[in-house]
Amino acid sequence: MPERDLQYLSELAAQLRVDSVRAAAEAGSGHPTSSMSAADLMAVLFACHLRYDFDHPDNPANDHLIFSKGHASPLLYALYKAAGAIDDKELLTFRKRSSRLEGHPTPRLPWVDVATGSLGQGLAVGVGVAMAGRLERLPYRVWVLCGDSELAEGSIWEAAEHAGCEGLANLTVIVDVNRLGQRGPTRHGWDTGAYARRFGAFGWHTIEIDGHDPGQIDFALSDACNTRRRPTVILAKTRKGEGVLEVENREGAHGKPLKDPDKALEELGGPRDVRVEVHKPDDAPAPYRFETRPMSLPTYEVGDKVATRTAFGDALAALGAAREDVVVLDGEVADSTKAEAFAKEFPERFFEMYIAEQELVAAAVGLQVRGWRPYAATFAAFLTRAYDFIRMAGVSRASIRLVGSHAGVSIGEDGPSQMGLEDMAMMRAVYGSTVLYPCDANQAAALTVEMADIEGVSYLRTTRGNTPVIYQPGERFPVGGSRILRHSHNDRATILAAGVTVHEALAAADELRDAGIPVGVIDLYSVKPVDTSALVEAATTTGNLITVEDHRLEGGLADAVMDAVSELGPRVVKLAVTGLPASATPEEQLALARIDRHAIAEAVKRLL
Amino acid sequence: MPERDLQYLSELAAQLRVDSVRAAAEAGSGHPTSSMSAADLMAVLFACHLRYDFDHPDNPANDHLIFSKGHASPLLYALYKAAGAIDDKELLTFRKRSSRLEGHPTPRLPWVDVATGSLGQGLAVGVGVAMAGRLERLPYRVWVLCGDSELAEGSIWEAAEHAGCEGLANLTVIVDVNRLGQRGPTRHGWDTGAYARRFGAFGWHTIEIDGHDPGQIDFALSDACNTRRRPTVILAKTRKGEGVLEVENREGAHGKPLKDPDKALEELGGPRDVRVEVHKPDDAPAPYRFETRPMSLPTYEVGDKVATRTAFGDALAALGAAREDVVVLDGEVADSTKAEAFAKEFPERFFEMYIAEQELVAAAVGLQVRGWRPYAATFAAFLTRAYDFIRMAGVSRASIRLVGSHAGVSIGEDGPSQMGLEDMAMMRAVYGSTVLYPCDANQAAALTVEMADIEGVSYLRTTRGNTPVIYQPGERFPVGGSRILRHSHNDRATILAAGVTVHEALAAADELRDAGIPVGVIDLYSVKPVDTSALVEAATTTGNLITVEDHRLEGGLADAVMDAVSELGPRVVKLAVTGLPASATPEEQLALARIDRHAIAEAVKRLL
Repeated sequence: MPERDLQYLSELAAQLRVDSVRAAAEAGSGHPTSSMSAADLMAVLFACHLRYDFDHPDNPANDHLIFSKGHASPLLYALYKAAGAIDDKELLTFRKRSSRLEGHPTPRLPWVDVATGSLGQGLAVGVGVAMAGRLERLPYRVWVLCGDSELAEGSIWEAAEHAGCEGLANLTVIVDVNRLGQRGPTRHGWDTGAYARRFGAFGWHTIEIDGHDPGQIDFALSDACNTRRRPTVILAKTRKGEGVLEVENREGAHGKPLKDPDKALEELGGPRDVRVEVHKPDDAPAPYRFETRPMSLPTYEVGDKVATRTAFGDALAALGAAREDVVVLDGEVADSTKAEAFAKEFPERFFEMYIAEQELVAAAVGLQVRGWRPYAATFAAFLTRAYDFIRMAGVSRASIRLVGSHAGVSIGEDGPSQMGLEDMAMMRAVYGSTVLYPCDANQAAALTVEMADIEGVSYLRTTRGNTPVIYQPGERFPVGGSRILRHSHNDRATILAAGVTVHEALAAADELRDAGIPVGVIDLYSVKPVDTSALVEAATTTGNLITVEDHRLEGGLADAVMDAVSELGPRVVKLAVTGLPASATPEEQLALARIDRHAIAEAVKRLL
Repeated sequence: MPERDLQYLSELAAQLRVDSVRAAAEAGSGHPTSSMSAADLMAVLFACHLRYDFDHPDNPANDHLIFSKGHASPLLYALYKAAGAIDDKELLTFRKRSSRLEGHPTPRLPWVDVATGSLGQGLAVGVGVAMAGRLERLPYRVWVLCGDSELAEGSIWEAAEHAGCEGLANLTVIVDVNRLGQRGPTRHGWDTGAYARRFGAFGWHTIEIDGHDPGQIDFALSDACNTRRRPTVILAKTRKGEGVLEVENREGAHGKPLKDPDKALEELGGPRDVRVEVHKPDDAPAPYRFETRPMSLPTYEVGDKVATRTAFGDALAALGAAREDVVVLDGEVADSTKAEAFAKEFPERFFEMYIAEQELVAAAVGLQVRGWRPYAATFAAFLTRAYDFIRMAGVSRASIRLVGSHAGVSIGEDGPSQMGLEDMAMMRAVYGSTVLYPCDANQAAALTVEMADIEGVSYLRTTRGNTPVIYQPGERFPVGGSRILRHSHNDRATILAAGVTVHEALAAADELRDAGIPVGVIDLYSVKPVDTSALVEAATTTGNLITVEDHRLEGGLADAVMDAVSELGPRVVKLAVTGLPASATPEEQLALARIDRHAIAEAVKRLL
């Protein structure tokens, strides 16, 4: 590399450090030292290798850059300034109220794909973006900046395994090995070989460099671009706080502004006005076109017994035929979730993610970055494995569809490890989420299709066993709706149920009617958003509500009902799973958990 | 190995297969083929290497055996039968109601340490049990049986990294590489070298063998016992369903009984009555003695401003001095959680788990298996990463103490990725859990100590910023209690708060009192179990309740309140976080989320 270029890159890197120090100083918080270690790496990337049109962030040919070490946000924003995407005034709004330059990057900025800040996630999402590149046959590259500390996260190795085995050569990870975590030294310090052995074993091309040497960085980035059939990891030895004596390679300097920013700026040669011309992609191809064809939903006869998971699988295959933007991921249980119905029809749009639920969800987030409509399925119980990813998908405003099968005690003999009993609590608490829980096959099919157009994180809860079909084919079930299944003007109470308990509630209502106690039954298939007007009506007419759900007492259907009517003060009895189930038949499980027809009837009598 | 021994081992293995087939046939469900592949491995382990006194499962010198592939429960129970721990009649109760032979193993059996069935967890917990062995200076070994499919889980690599770097030579993992997962072939099939490269890179001693050759198995197990300074992984190539043509090495035979069990038994040579004499440990040392000394809690002056996380750290150090059975783990943020106060005083009982929250929780579960009292701390937001482990800790009846700092929007500028906003929903939904949320330093210190004796999964939620000390030092805060902070006979409403919102509620109450509207304030520091009698009293006197919490609307404090009073029908207004926060100061965050004093006062006025 000519001396003049080296000089320029070093000036650019110095400015990135200066601006990181300034932004954090102005904010009174932030992570300047974690930014300074990676400044040379990013300077060379932006000046020489990134292909990105900042004026057109939606250009499908743009590369993707994900700061997995999201706390290095001052560096990212300093890069945006150097690239002319933001000005200095905006840079100094960092971390202030209503600034889009948040403490950790979020997609409020048009150049940010996903929110980061929970470590170990950016790479996992980057894998999904790289998968999309292969699907779209576009030559963009995915660049992920990782910290060394976050390589301890298991999700990193789920991602490494998927990318390595799939040979995602369009993915490059740059690891800023600055030796120091938040609390102190990392496990491997500057032993980049330790990381290289691990990534190498997972099938990656590995390069170890001095992360402050622009020539080495440039060579490594070129090498990554020229490597075929394997993803590349660049393990760059760096110094945290590089360039400022007060903090350089020192413990105790994580996550706080420098004590003497003026002195630091002086050491760094003061503010500059260096610009970086980021290369634009060679062309701006039209966005990947997704064909849409008329949809023909599977139908089920009223009275037949069909599992909602089966209907989900059938509907997914039908949806796949109608919409080319639908992609499906599964955690090595597609024969159980029934996602296999889609896999058989559209193998090129089906991704076997094996037993790695974090990567399952992260890849879905990555795919939706590129406009795909992912459905990710596993057992409801095992989605708990990916809760941090689901939570962050909410922060990322990502539109992903999660499907959890084998919900509740009604799975029967397999026992509590396989029972989704916390999933509604978990999913309801996610920002902007939608939670759907069908009770019959036609409803499950309709809701599966409905999900395709839901923004944000949506969740479909399906049941293992066969349940009676009670709705006609073709009925619509809008999100936020409900269905009144039993109702009379003499109703003395209303039973609120969803999924398997709808059938128990109907049986209880019939039994009670015969005993001279008329009660209403509402199918709350939309658990979030819940049908407030139907619930208000029930609360103000009968005033006595019974909720019944195959889920723990906490955070599920009962809580959803209370959200709608708590200010009205109805009396509400909650039936839900409170004990620890063991093995038993599905019928025994419902009875033991006291959520079956007999328990419901008793609860009504007790309430009245 | 003499021919006679080989003959015996092969007979024993045949019986294990026979009993696996019989148990699943009788149950009508279960995983016989996954059991059959590992039968030779376990036969040799039981006959030649395991040290275990089945009559005294509490002998501290016993080895530990964890079936990480918990679905191979028929094999485990067949082994128990061969060892004389259960009889054939009990074996055939497999998966039936009230049988302790559940679909996946749980500690209802005295020889089972932890529940498994969610894959990738057994090894992670085994690491904790091995850590305890080093702490206790006892020579027991930890044997973990893994499936090959579960090696895709990131938690496996968190465990591998910890065990490899710590050199836990008392840990041996036996991987049943039977090539077939649930849905189909695994990623690496029979390529045991692929797994060996990965474990080798993580610092493990690796051995690749034919998993149906007793001589090779015996040699490998001996090698593992003789290996120093490194954990060992034995990668055993096996055939799923080994021994029965109908299912051997065939797809589509996962997780179901054999179609023709009689024919299978015939192929396997029919039932036998082979016994295995498991070697007892050489001695039965006294259990590790934990010293207890008088406790002197840190104290804080009323009116001072101290963060509850600081009080937690101080109290933890005091507790460590008083109780030698307290151990602390942290996810590389001990300077933030303040667990560092303990680390400084008792470095030998402090475990830096780095940024690997799944292993953080799993190691705590493993340590409590041996009678230690673990506290595991990280940011509340990042405990979501370990939700499946927390859920399974509940199923394991494990007593672990989790501490989540930086709860809520009140952390301020760092933004939503760092805010624990779903943690109460998540923790409340766990079986048998306790959720505590202190509002001042003396209360936080008291609850930290209170937790030491709580059975099951308990959770302490701490706050980043300083909050005023309002309670006197030495006051007691029993689990399930609450504190009435404002009360008059004219109260027109009662505000229910915990943590930071207690202070907002007090300010609102004072403002309302001055405006002629007397309201009560209750500090619900025990979110689960919640103080039902205090809430019933409030619900039946004022009848108007306002809940306010720095947590999402779903599943938190409001839901806890409704659990207690929903049947009484009070009117309840819920104030909680509903939007997506960004960066702002702590005060701005509370105001923007509408959970500050002004929002509370307004809500009261609106309700009345």
